[in-house]
Amino acid sequence: MPLRSDWSAKSCPIARSLDVLGDPWTVLVLRELFTGNLRFDSIRDRLEVADTVLSKRLNALTDAGLVNPTKYGGGTARARYEYRLTNAGQATLPVLHALAQWGAKHRSDGELSRSTLEISCVRCGREANSADWCTECNLPLSAESTEWRRPADPSVALRLMRS
Amino acid sequence: MPLRSDWSAKSCPIARSLDVLGDPWTVLVLRELFTGNLRFDSIRDRLEVADTVLSKRLNALTDAGLVNPTKYGGGTARARYEYRLTNAGQATLPVLHALAQWGAKHRSDGELSRSTLEISCVRCGREANSADWCTECNLPLSAESTEWRRPADPSVALRLMRS
Repeated sequence: MPLRSDWSAKSCPIARSLDVLGDPWTVLVLRELFTGNLRFDSIRDRLEVADTVLSKRLNALTDAGLVNPTKYGGGTARARYEYRLTNAGQATLPVLHALAQWGAKHRSDGELSRSTLEISCVRCGREANSADWCTECNLPLSAESTEWRRPADPSVALRLMRS
Repeated sequence: MPLRSDWSAKSCPIARSLDVLGDPWTVLVLRELFTGNLRFDSIRDRLEVADTVLSKRLNALTDAGLVNPTKYGGGTARARYEYRLTNAGQATLPVLHALAQWGAKHRSDGELSRSTLEISCVRCGREANSADWCTECNLPLSAESTEWRRPADPSVALRLMRS
């Protein structure tokens, strides 16, 4: 991670959040975890990121309590982990949604239909127009109630979490 | 700004947003601009940031169309600028709110009452429980309809923008 100031002790909660979330790779790792891409190798392949970069981010997310590494497989000498979002990790969803909605509107590449992450409410099926609230159901839009359709594969609806 | 990958051409709108907003100093500069702290020297003093760091962020925000530098004063040899948020800049507010709300809940320093940025709707006066929607008024929570009370000075309500 690039050397930078430590924001963790700042009184402003924006600054304290940035201590964990003020890094682009970290946010993209969270995006992958929300979609169920939980393993080191597959996250690395999807993000096209160096092992050292990814390893630092996953360790920082673990230390900050946003992910919980869980062994899988077994029987081999080398332990392998899946990185599951904790409640604090799942609660970052509005940050990702706010970034997605701003990016779709203000950082368009001119091919908007191919470049939008569609965020919708699983209860009513409507596309969200808020980062964290279904204005149709008048209920929070949490990880349990959200599905995404990604620009690369809009035919597949991804449920973020199943309660 | 630390060397990192260029995210601007990514198809995911989260990645495209991070090309501009995936930097902690940039987000804190936006926070200052929302509160009406528009001038280089006063932003630098508030953030305790090096001139070169701040200058790069303000130039990047200008290039990306989030701020509009406007000359003020005049009569002196050295031009001075105020950095005013454009519509695209004002539209980043949900990102800041999502960070503030997550930070207040999940990065508390144990003195929550002193460390929360209170976000409220100017129409109904209620504290917001969404990053971008007043669930009381059932209307968007935009820069024009939001006021902040900062942890350092909770007696002062800051109107973010006056339309």
